[in-house]
This record gives sequence, C-alpha cells and structure tokens, in this order.
Amino acid sequence: MIPRYSRPEMTRIWEPANRFRIWFEIEAHACDALAEIGVIPVEAARAVWARGDLVYTPERIARIDEIERETKHDVIAFLTELAEHVGAESRFIHQGMTSSDVLDTCLAVQLTQAADLLLADIDRVLAALEKRAFEYKDLACMGRSHGIHAEPVTIGLKFAGFHAAFQRARVRLLAARADIATCAISGAVGTFANIDPRVEVHVAAKLGLIPEPVSTQVIPRDRHALFFATLGVIAGSVEHLATEIRHLQRTEVREAEEYFSPGQKGSSAMPHKRNPVLTENLTGLSRLVRGMVTPALENIALWHERDISHSSVERMIGPDATVTLDFALNRLAGVVETLVIYPDAVARNLNQLGGLVFSQRVLLALTQAGMSREDSYKAVQRNAMKVWQEGANFLDLLKADEQVTAHLTAPVLESLFDLGYHTKHVDTIFCRVFGRA
Amino acid sequence: MIPRYSRPEMTRIWEPANRFRIWFEIEAHACDALAEIGVIPVEAARAVWARGDLVYTPERIARIDEIERETKHDVIAFLTELAEHVGAESRFIHQGMTSSDVLDTCLAVQLTQAADLLLADIDRVLAALEKRAFEYKDLACMGRSHGIHAEPVTIGLKFAGFHAAFQRARVRLLAARADIATCAISGAVGTFANIDPRVEVHVAAKLGLIPEPVSTQVIPRDRHALFFATLGVIAGSVEHLATEIRHLQRTEVREAEEYFSPGQKGSSAMPHKRNPVLTENLTGLSRLVRGMVTPALENIALWHERDISHSSVERMIGPDATVTLDFALNRLAGVVETLVIYPDAVARNLNQLGGLVFSQRVLLALTQAGMSREDSYKAVQRNAMKVWQEGANFLDLLKADEQVTAHLTAPVLESLFDLGYHTKHVDTIFCRVFGRA
Amino acid sequence: MIPRYSRPEMTRIWEPANRFRIWFEIEAHACDALAEIGVIPVEAARAVWARGDLVYTPERIARIDEIERETKHDVIAFLTELAEHVGAESRFIHQGMTSSDVLDTCLAVQLTQAADLLLADIDRVLAALEKRAFEYKDLACMGRSHGIHAEPVTIGLKFAGFHAAFQRARVRLLAARADIATCAISGAVGTFANIDPRVEVHVAAKLGLIPEPVSTQVIPRDRHALFFATLGVIAGSVEHLATEIRHLQRTEVREAEEYFSPGQKGSSAMPHKRNPVLTENLTGLSRLVRGMVTPALENIALWHERDISHSSVERMIGPDATVTLDFALNRLAGVVETLVIYPDAVARNLNQLGGLVFSQRVLLALTQAGMSREDSYKAVQRNAMKVWQEGANFLDLLKADEQVTAHLTAPVLESLFDLGYHTKHVDTIFCRVFGRA
Amino acid sequence: MIPRYSRPEMTRIWEPANRFRIWFEIEAHACDALAEIGVIPVEAARAVWARGDLVYTPERIARIDEIERETKHDVIAFLTELAEHVGAESRFIHQGMTSSDVLDTCLAVQLTQAADLLLADIDRVLAALEKRAFEYKDLACMGRSHGIHAEPVTIGLKFAGFHAAFQRARVRLLAARADIATCAISGAVGTFANIDPRVEVHVAAKLGLIPEPVSTQVIPRDRHALFFATLGVIAGSVEHLATEIRHLQRTEVREAEEYFSPGQKGSSAMPHKRNPVLTENLTGLSRLVRGMVTPALENIALWHERDISHSSVERMIGPDATVTLDFALNRLAGVVETLVIYPDAVARNLNQLGGLVFSQRVLLALTQAGMSREDSYKAVQRNAMKVWQEGANFLDLLKADEQVTAHLTAPVLESLFDLGYHTKHVDTIFCRVFGRA
Repeated sequence: MIPRYSRPEMTRIWEPANRFRIWFEIEAHACDALAEIGVIPVEAARAVWARGDLVYTPERIARIDEIERETKHDVIAFLTELAEHVGAESRFIHQGMTSSDVLDTCLAVQLTQAADLLLADIDRVLAALEKRAFEYKDLACMGRSHGIHAEPVTIGLKFAGFHAAFQRARVRLLAARADIATCAISGAVGTFANIDPRVEVHVAAKLGLIPEPVSTQVIPRDRHALFFATLGVIAGSVEHLATEIRHLQRTEVREAEEYFSPGQKGSSAMPHKRNPVLTENLTGLSRLVRGMVTPALENIALWHERDISHSSVERMIGPDATVTLDFALNRLAGVVETLVIYPDAVARNLNQLGGLVFSQRVLLALTQAGMSREDSYKAVQRNAMKVWQEGANFLDLLKADEQVTAHLTAPVLESLFDLGYHTKHVDTIFCRVFGRA
Repeated sequence: MIPRYSRPEMTRIWEPANRFRIWFEIEAHACDALAEIGVIPVEAARAVWARGDLVYTPERIARIDEIERETKHDVIAFLTELAEHVGAESRFIHQGMTSSDVLDTCLAVQLTQAADLLLADIDRVLAALEKRAFEYKDLACMGRSHGIHAEPVTIGLKFAGFHAAFQRARVRLLAARADIATCAISGAVGTFANIDPRVEVHVAAKLGLIPEPVSTQVIPRDRHALFFATLGVIAGSVEHLATEIRHLQRTEVREAEEYFSPGQKGSSAMPHKRNPVLTENLTGLSRLVRGMVTPALENIALWHERDISHSSVERMIGPDATVTLDFALNRLAGVVETLVIYPDAVARNLNQLGGLVFSQRVLLALTQAGMSREDSYKAVQRNAMKVWQEGANFLDLLKADEQVTAHLTAPVLESLFDLGYHTKHVDTIFCRVFGRA
Repeated sequence: MIPRYSRPEMTRIWEPANRFRIWFEIEAHACDALAEIGVIPVEAARAVWARGDLVYTPERIARIDEIERETKHDVIAFLTELAEHVGAESRFIHQGMTSSDVLDTCLAVQLTQAADLLLADIDRVLAALEKRAFEYKDLACMGRSHGIHAEPVTIGLKFAGFHAAFQRARVRLLAARADIATCAISGAVGTFANIDPRVEVHVAAKLGLIPEPVSTQVIPRDRHALFFATLGVIAGSVEHLATEIRHLQRTEVREAEEYFSPGQKGSSAMPHKRNPVLTENLTGLSRLVRGMVTPALENIALWHERDISHSSVERMIGPDATVTLDFALNRLAGVVETLVIYPDAVARNLNQLGGLVFSQRVLLALTQAGMSREDSYKAVQRNAMKVWQEGANFLDLLKADEQVTAHLTAPVLESLFDLGYHTKHVDTIFCRVFGRA
Repeated sequence: MIPRYSRPEMTRIWEPANRFRIWFEIEAHACDALAEIGVIPVEAARAVWARGDLVYTPERIARIDEIERETKHDVIAFLTELAEHVGAESRFIHQGMTSSDVLDTCLAVQLTQAADLLLADIDRVLAALEKRAFEYKDLACMGRSHGIHAEPVTIGLKFAGFHAAFQRARVRLLAARADIATCAISGAVGTFANIDPRVEVHVAAKLGLIPEPVSTQVIPRDRHALFFATLGVIAGSVEHLATEIRHLQRTEVREAEEYFSPGQKGSSAMPHKRNPVLTENLTGLSRLVRGMVTPALENIALWHERDISHSSVERMIGPDATVTLDFALNRLAGVVETLVIYPDAVARNLNQLGGLVFSQRVLLALTQAGMSREDSYKAVQRNAMKVWQEGANFLDLLKADEQVTAHLTAPVLESLFDLGYHTKHVDTIFCRVFGRA
C-alpha cells in the first residue's frame, strides 16, 4: 500500500482510528450482552457506552501506542486506555473474551467495509461502461481474434461485454463479502468455556455479521482465502479491460485514447508522445492484487486450533489488496468515463483489408449456392491471400474469379459486403446485458 | 494428471469419447433449433440424431485422429467423421457456427460434469466427518494454539470444524459451477451474424447451461478463473485437514493415525515405521491444485475478441486440477473414514502439563475473587512457569502459593480443574454445524 | 505433460526405462564402492554389472510393475526384478542404502539430463536469433514505448536484445543445473549409519554429480525450488519474445508474421485468417511453466528430516515443467527461424506519423540553438499534437512555425529527420551481444 | 512494507533521500563523461559536483515534491530542484538522457544495496547456525521422517544442514546481485541516438555496475524476475528453519524453545503459554516474500521497447520483498542465537519408543546373520508393532523372540542399541559444511 496508489476512503478503513473504533464497538456490544444475561452489571455496560463512546483522536491513539510499548500487547493497551475513560466499570469489559475474538471479528468488519467500498467502485465502473456502451452501441468496428482482423463488431458491444464481466465481479464480491462476514467471540480455543454463545450472537447482529459456526481460536482462513481470491479474479477483469484499451490506443490502431489533457506531458524526452499510462498502470496493479492470492491460499492450513503465521500476511495483504483494487477500480472508471473514441480511425481500420472480413459470409454464400464447402473455402482463401500479399481489393478479386462468379453474381457479391448483417443482433445482446437496447 | 493420482470417474470426463459425445450433442441440438426456425430441413436434424447418435468407440476416435492428422483441425476432423455416419444431411450440421462455439460450450459441460463429481466427493468427505464428529463428540482432547497446549476441546469438535469448512467448500463450488455453466453459440466474434441467437438458447437449455450474455469468440475467462480459484481454496481446506492429521500422528502426539493395514510396510529400511503418507500426499496434491490458480488468473486478459493463449493452459489445468482434486477428496474421505483415534494418548496429552491448561480459569477465578487482573496474571504465570521448567504439578503449586490461597481455597481450586467446564457448549456448536447434537 | 506439447527427447527422460536405468547405475556403482572398501565381495559387484547391465525393455518394466502391485513399493520391486537377472549376488545390492538415496539421486540425474536438453534448446534459439539479427541488423523500424511510436530502432536490434536475454537464460540454467546436480547416499536420516560416505563420493563422481554436503533423508528442496524458479524466469523470456511477435503480426502493424504454409487454414470459419497461433500458444505454455514455481517454493519447508509432501508435486512438475519448456523453446526457435519480415510494412509504419518520431531531436536542436528547454518543449509539442489530431505532416508544420524557424532553418530542420542518426550505434550494441557487428 | 516488519537499514534504501542521492550521482557522473568526450564544458561537470553534491535534506525533498505537484514528473522535479543549487551550468545536466536511464539505473543500485544488506543478514544467520551447530554437534536426538521417529541424528547436524542451506542462499544471492547490477544510459529506445555509449560505460563503472548490453527504453525485466525469484527461494529456507523450530517447540516435543524473557506474556488469556511466535511470524513473512515472485515473473513480457506496467509492481515489491526478507533474516538470526535447547527432553524423546529406532540395525544384523531379508523384516516388524500397540520394550521383545535369538544372542542384540553407531560420521559431515569438525 503506497500513497500513490491509494484512496483515503479505503486507507481510512485500515487506520488505527477505525480499528480501535471497531474494537470498542465489539467490546461495548459484548458488555450489553453480558449484562443482558446477568454476567456483568447493567450499569457497567451503560457506563462503557456513556463514557467510552468517543472518537479515537490522534491523542488517544498516541496514548494507546505508549501503553503498547510497555505491555507489548495491542489489545491490552487498547483496554487500558479505554479504562482511563470508562473508569471503574472498565473491569467488566472483555470478560471471558480472548484477543482473537476482538481481532478476528474486527478484521471481518474491516473486510466488509472494504467490500462495500469495492462494490461502490464496481458500480461506478458499471455506470461508466453502460453509458459508453449505449453511446457507441452501433459504431461498427473491427472485431479481432488472435490480434488479426476477423469480423465486425461494434464499439458498444465491447463495452457491453465488459459490463457483463463487472456484473459478474459484483455478484462474486457480494458472495465473498457474505463469506467473510462472520463474528467469533468464542474464547481461547472456540469452546465458549468462559463466555456464553449468546454474546457472540448479539455482537454479530449488531455488527451486521453472522456468528462463525465453529471458530477455533480464530475464524477459519478459507474464508479469507476465498475473499482474496475473488479480489484476484476481479483484478483479472480490470487487466482485461485495461489491455483492450492499451491495444486500441496503439499508434497503428488508435481507435481509442485515454484522455490527454491540454498541457499534459507524455514523455520528458519525446514531446510527441501520448501514452496509455493509466491502463498500463492498471495492468501492473492487477498483477499486485493477483499476487496476493497465493499467500492467502497458504494461510488456510493453520496448525491445530490456530497458529499465528497468517497474521503478518494479513497485516500486509488486507490493506494492500483492498486499497490497490479500490484505487484500480476508480482509476478504471475514470479512464472509461473519459475515454476518447476516434470513429474515423475505427472506420479506417474496418476497411483496412479491403473487405477481407466478409470472407466467411462469401464462403457461406458459395456453399448455399451449391459449391462444396471445401471448394468454397479454397476459392475464398485463394483470393483472400492475394489481399494479404498484394493489398488488392477483395471484392474486385472475387468478381474476377470465374469459379466464384459461376455461383454468385456481382450484385449478390456486393450485397454480402454488408456491415448491417453483422450488427443485426446487437440489440439482442444489449437486452441481455442491460435489460434494454 | 498422472494415473497414480487419478480416478477413472474423473479422467473419463476428459477423454476423447466424452468430449466427442458432447460435441455431437451440441451439434445435434443446434440442428434441432436450426430446423425449428427453418434454417435447415427438419429431416436433416432428425437424420443427425437417427444416424449419428452413437457411442464414440475407439475405432471412431482413431478415425477422427486419422482425419485430424490430415486437416490439422480437430473440429473439422470430428465433423468429417460424423458425416460418414450421417450421410448427405451432414452438410446441414455446424451451419453458421464456429469452432469455439463447440469447444467452449463443451468445456463448460465438462467443467460442470467435473463439478458434479467434486460435489459428490465433498459429500463423501462431509459424511465421513459427520460420522466421526459424533463418534468423538465428547472425547476431550487438548486444544493447541501455536502448537502449544492451550485449553481443552474435543476430538468431535475438530471434525465438526472441518465439516463446516467442507460445507463452505460445497457452497462455493456450487457457485463456481453456476458461474461456469454457460453456453456460447454466437459465431466468429460473438455477434450471431451467421446464426440465430435462438439456437444458443435451445442448446443451452438442452445441456443444462445458460446462454452466455456476451461472448466474443469465446466465453470470457474470468468465469474459468473463478472456477479454478475455487478449486484452489478447496484444496487449501484439504491441506488444512491433512495437516491436522499429520500433526496428530506425530510420534510424540499420536492421538490419531492413518489406518495401517496388517502386512503394510511403512519403510523398506526401518521396519518399525507407520507414516502418515496419505495426508502428506494430500498436502502435496493441494499444492498442485493451488498452483493452477495463477495461470487461470493470467488467462483472463485475452486480447480483443480472443487470443488462443488460454487454450494450452486449459488443456493442462482443466484435467489436472479436477482430476487431482477429485482424487484428493476421495483419498481424504477414506482417511477420515478409517482414521484410528487413540483415546489413551488423547488423555495422556491432555494431562501432560499437569493441569496447566486450566490457567485461564484460575486467572478468572482469582479476578472474580477480588484480586486485580494484573496480580492474578502474575500469580498464575509464576506458578505456571515452574511447571514448564520443573515439571511440577500445577494444582499443587497453586495450593502452596499463599497469595493464591488467600483468595481461593483448595477445594475451590480443585473445582476449577474441570474438563466439563470446557465442553459444556459442544452441543451448541454441533447444533450450528449439523442441526443436531 | 500432454503429447501435444511434448518432444520425445524430453519425455524419454521421465519414462520408466530411463528411470530404472539410472537406478541400476546408482546401485551398480554403489556396489563397486562397497566392494572397494570391503563391505561386499568384489565378485558380487562384478556380477551386478555382468548380468544386470541390460536395457529396460517393456517386458522388464511390466515385470517390475507386476511385482510392485504385490509389494506396493517401487524400489523393492525394482530390486526384486534385478535379482532375477543377477542371481544370488543380488543380495549384496542396496546394502545400507535407503529408497530415498536411489530416488533423490535419480531425480538429480534426470534434472541434469533435462537441463542439458534445455541448454541445447536455448542454443537453437540463440542461433536463430543471431542469424535473424544480422539479417535485419540495419532495417530501421519503429521503436515503441507504451505501444506508441517513440523513436526508430532496427529489426536486428530487437533480435539482438532477445539474444542477450537467452544468453542470460543459458547462464542461469547452467547455475541451476549445478545447483541440482548432487548425490545423496546417506541412509535413512542422512547420517551414513549403515553406509560409508565413500560410497556416496564414488557414485556421485560416476554420475557427474557432487555429494550433497548434508542430506537428511532427502536432498534439500531449496535446490529444486531454485531449479524450477529458473525455468519460470526462462519461460518469462519465451513469453516476452512471443508477445513481441504477436504484436508485430497484428493486422494494423503486420511487420512480421509467423510462417504460414500454402494450404494452411487459419480459421475454419474465416478463410482470410492468418493467425499468430504459435506465439499465442507459447504465451500459454509460459503461464504453465511459471505456475509451477509456486508449488516448488512450497516444497522447501519439509518437516524435520523429511516428509513426503514434495513427492506428488515433483512427480507432476518434474516432467511437466521440463517437457513444456523444452517444447516451447523448440517451437520458439522454429518460429524465429522462419519468421517472415515485411520490410514494406516496417517502412510504412516508420513513416506513419509523418516524422513525429523525430520530435526529441528537434527539441534538442532547439535547445542547442538557444531556446529554453521549456519553450522548446512547448513548441515541439504544439506542432506534434496537430499531427495526432489532424494528421498533418510534422516537418511542414515546424517549417511553418515562426518560433521554430527563428532558431532552425528549413534545411537544418530537414537534416534532423534522419534515420541514420538513430542507428549509428547499432554496431556498438551488436559487438556487445555477439562480439562482432 | 509495514514498520512492524522493517529495519531502518533497509527502509533507508527506499527512502527519497537515498533515491535522489543516487539520481544525483548518476547525473553527475554522466556530466563527467559528457565533459570528457567534449559534449558539455568541463566546468559544467565540475560545477555539478561543486554545488550539487549535497545531502538530500527533508527541506530539499519537500521542495522536489512541491515541484512535482506542478510538473507531475518526478525526474523533471528532481532536475529543477538540482538546478536551483547548481545554477546556470545545470542546463548541461541530463543531456541526451531519458528518465528511464535514471530510474532503471537507480533501481539497479538500490537492489544491489539491498542485496548487500541481505548478504550481511545471511552472514549473521550463518554465524549463529555455525555456533549452535558446534555447541550441539554431538547431542544425539531423534531424527524424524514423516513426523515419525526414524533413527538418531544430532541437534548439531540439524544446524549444520541449515548452515549448508544458507550457504547456498548466499551463493544464489550473489548471482542474483550480479544479474541485477547493470546500468542503462541509452536514451529513449536504447539506441544511444542522443548520448554516447561511453557515458554509460563511465557511469556504470563509477556505480559498481556493468553496462546493460541491450537496453530498450528499460533494463530487461527478466533480471528483476530472477532477483525476486531468488529472494523467494531464500524465504523458503527461512520458512524451512522456522518450521523445524516450531515443531521442536510443540508441547509434546519441546526439545527447543524460542527464548522467553522473564516478564514476557505468551497469551493475555492463558498465563501458562510460551508460544513460538517469532518462527510463526517468519512463516508468514516467507509467504509474503514468496508471493512477490509471481508478479515479478509477469513483469518480464513488456510490450515492444517497454510499457510501464512493471513500474507499479516494482514500487511495491522492490521495497516490500527486500525489507521483509531483511527483517525476517535478522529475526531468524536472533531466534537461532538465543534458541533454548532442552537436552533432557531431547533424550526423553530419543528413548520414547523403547529403542524402536534401532529397528533397521536389527534388520541388517539379522540379514548378515543369515536370515533372509524378507524374514528379517517380518521378525523385526512383528516386534516393532507390539511396541506401538502395547508400549512394550523393543529390546526385551526381541530377546524373547525365538526366531530372532536363533540368529542373534542377547549381548549382540544389546550391542545393536547403540547411539554411537549413528553418530560416527558426524565429523565427516561437519567437515563438508564447515571445513572443520
């Protein structure tokens, strides 16, 4: 997590003020439940809220840090500082709980908060993609397989395809959020020996979590692995769209371009440059997020009721993966929102191969006109290769090919070179994606 | 995928006979739809089923291979061989379709078949875990954090925890199955230029798939990435349970042991050995499955409407990940089903530290009896360290500590050394996991 | 490892015949050493060579398999079958050794054999790159950063750069080969309790290995991790070159093209297609090889003197990584050897931006002529942006810009648009790479 | 990179003050070379050193940041601030260079600085391992394969084995350091169009680098991939040793223990706990470092003469991987230096199975006494299984087994239960590792 690739909305989740606030809420809600079932006095629980429900200011955080330097234990430092506000009733706080109860439940809250931000990010990406999709719904452009001209699609279809991908990202992230949103207040090895399970149920409900069915000392790490794996898959879709834009901006293609503001410098040495640096950056950020999947997977097999090897991993990838993906999604949304499309270049590329991209349709027409598929293929390929090699016009070649004209007249041939044939189902696809066309 | 770690049920899915069969069904169903909408004669569609609905015998597969050696194109070879059975009407097959329509839809079918097998595997693991969980529900054993004795749990709770993990695995695999279960019959760049979208809808329904909202030339690879990532997370849970068993079988622990049949040899050199080789093997197999997540993630960002870089990756990880995980889950189920538990050793380990594991309870009792938490901690730790260092009996030490006995009498101290205190909520946890206790 | 992406030269290394042959040599050489130090009779060692030095025919392998089905132990099965040839003296074979001595030393031999093949593969790639580099040493082409035209390079320079990369690959692979080439014949836990260390020294020397300084039961797995990590880095360079070619073959660029034979079909549906399928395939194969690095890294931390979790991993990635990379390097060499370069397209792209790529030189000239760097940048960029936006000719624009012409006359400006300026150090670079220019 | 897992020695390398200092040296040395070949005045080069050779104070860095906020270009901001010190001659700085020349060469210097620190770290680990190895050279302990008692080794041998591993780590890191230590001052696309190659040669020599044979705009990223992969392998060895210690500290084993200071708290809830938290932490840190290998591998295949996708990856993994591994190696050294060994427990475990670990020796003795290997194995295993099942004494059982005593007398049997037999080659192994015993 480095400032250059961070948004304060997300980094805030991982800052001490938010963490301590969540810890406080866990403890205070637990006190309520403990009071409710008669383990601690009701007044004690009230006192915690009445005197402890305060913002974690830099001063408070400094005080906690000071205590931690002595005690070398973060939760104890936190409780000690809290006691300084709550007073005598503070001794009822944390009764029967273990540090992991606080830490793991807090991580669950932080990850759901992070997931909510990421969901909003995805919504912004979706909105941008939908807008641009409809804007260019009918702008025919070259479809390419293997980087080679294939058959026409539309610019709008490209956006629609990525919209569908980010819809999937949304669904998956919701599932991952649900998977991670559990609460464990079950004590040292998860047996509730010193704390009633009803406390966990209460705290979970208050924090928007569900109780972890079986915690050991910790919430099982397959949940976190699934969460980070999902972020990795979403990062893959970010890279997918970024790669598409980078390709479209290549000098020889240049159908699209990241917005380049007046006064911007593309290169200090080469004043003529306009580089797709944002989408290249997104490609790198995707690598980073995807790289965090492996350590998350390795975190699952903790020893017995827990070992603490996962902790250092999560201290790093928890913030890094969410902050980086949040930044990436926002940068991506911005790129899509302002992406410049060059219809002239789109048209020029579409025609670059002199109609070669209609080869399949000619092939089918020849077949339907009675030529065998094999002969049709040979006839079409024979003429197509001349276009590649000599730059000739495909339609002209076909019209001059006797084997072809024996089956298809010139006007029929001309009619096959028709973009509309290729775009006739765009509305169908749009309806699938957007529910409207 | 190597025979040693393969089950025929899963390898069969990836064999030519199954692949060609699926291809046939895709083509035959497509013919039905094409006939229905009037593109090809109804008789043609009927002929395909009437004369082509045959098993792919080794002879047929050899014939296809022979043709492929000539044409260097697998789908064309397949269609040519099919034509030899169907006859003249075969020219109506594959009309307006592209190879990827067949290949990608087939892969979707294979992955759903594989997912169904894996779901059954998980069910077997779940059944074994449930049985063993109830069998040992109340057998108190040492709970360990950091590999160090912590507080008691039960053997049954361990199984219950893993049962919950594999319940999650099941839910996630169902979601991944749904994600992958789409059909694309949309032509060269996904525009339905040469084939009506209704064909895709029909074939999808017949094969238990849903139509891919936006295919390009291919089904988007974020679906496959999510699928393989899910397998990776499940493999992590396999490793988790395998690691638990390996730990329990360590010579010094030996609370559990993989079933060792009479006549089995643990080591050619050391006749006394009984090694947890199955769970060690599962640890390695988990690494393999998890290692396939990264290439699957890298497959997402294909160029434009597709490049074919994903293909070689999937030819390997498609079979390898599913076959290996299927084998691992079955091996795991077998290990759990036959795992030998040694209650004597369980009890011996539980008592190894002379009651040290009740330290928290003594701490809480001292606190409740009025000693400050800090003093209580010191008093308990002081005596506990003597147990570590001198092997003394913890209860005796406490009884001899005046600061302790000032707050807690000997009978009270004795009452704190109570396993039942730790296992009183086992039923609650079992109800959460199994709906019964 | 699938036949489609395998060469028999490499698969042979991993086949039973080769494995058993290596086992035989380990055992026979060990007998020699044991005889030399007087542990077994000299006649016994001689008998092993005299009667056991035979090819492992399919019949012998079937016999070993048959025995293994009974004993469930591969080394014992091997020894039993060997005894059937050697006769009574066979009881002196394997004296004091443990299965891992044979297995791990054999793996070392196999990996060095694999490394030797890979080194030969790299040599083929290097030869192809060198040939093409000199062939196109001076063919000026567009250099691109960010996918955007930057300044001229030459096609030969591109090949030279990759030649340097594969020289590095060679050096690294040699180091990895040396790292893996160790022999362990040290017994059950590596203490030489039952076998003299001189046996290990002898066998190592005979097999071209060095004795492992400290084996436990196994050769430490950081060696293997380094080996597979090195293969992963080499795969990265394969992908790098493959990606370059895929880019150069894009329809809009088309400066290079994989050889497309007469009669070849690029697409069954679109007869006009010529796709870079080989380099796309190489991209996928690279993903596979790189994906095996992670499990190899996870194999390092075996428990105590060994656990067997690494074994299943290596059974798969040993063959898979080497076979796949061997295939990839050979495919890559073939692609480079036959790659078609289109000088016309190279020239056309070079001129596409109307001389814009000389912008830095104009900038420097303006600066040297006394204009401030800032003003120079603005003047050049101002005109450059018009080329992007309006497609104007850059030189004409500059000639018409009074601020520019105040410092640089038209002839001077024209002299700046000079390819030779950019290629003047090509020989220097070639000398660095090839030792000649 | 988070403070908790960082040492200032390493973080300093990645701080602005060091980075800018390196940039300055690159530019100043380049000026010297440019002056030497007559491109800029000698006085200009002198002025750069005379007036610019200053520490980068927080004030200067703040000034650079201020300029960067305006220009949005870090190298330009750096040069502008430098000009404020150097004055008029500053216009001769950076002549003909491109930003990447500075950035990539700087990264090379930073990585070599980091490598030097890591080498020193490894030396500290090696020293600690050597000291402990000799300290416990002859302390016999149980060797375990599969976590199961096998045959005796010594504690010193364990340390010696890890010493050999970190010797290998050292050799590999030296190779990786050499691989990364290259300098590129070759201009916008690596052609030296605007700068003489002699400048690169001079700067490289001054900075302890070698000139990159072929840079494009950047130093090729396979070098960096190899570097990070090497760090990943070293992290694997860290995890290996950490895992060994964690195992030895398990309550049931407890042959070793991380130093636990008086007053330390193992758990806030359970006062009796002494956990191996440092080595667990090292396990997690290893995961993090290993996780960075994948993105480094993905960075290799940049597009054409460069794209900038690698940059964000390196901004994160450059510091993260080196800082984390540096911290881990130092923590590891500290753990080894202060590790507590419990000889009593070592002895107790060694005898736990009642001599079972001598089973191989009995087997060999029976064989040598004329019993067939098969019968010997059965006899030994038969008795060994009784030890496992009934906890009997192995030697007693053998003495009571008539088939055994028919070949081996009681005194002979007793002589086989001899630790010295197993440790007789310890000196040989120590000589291999340390050159002395």
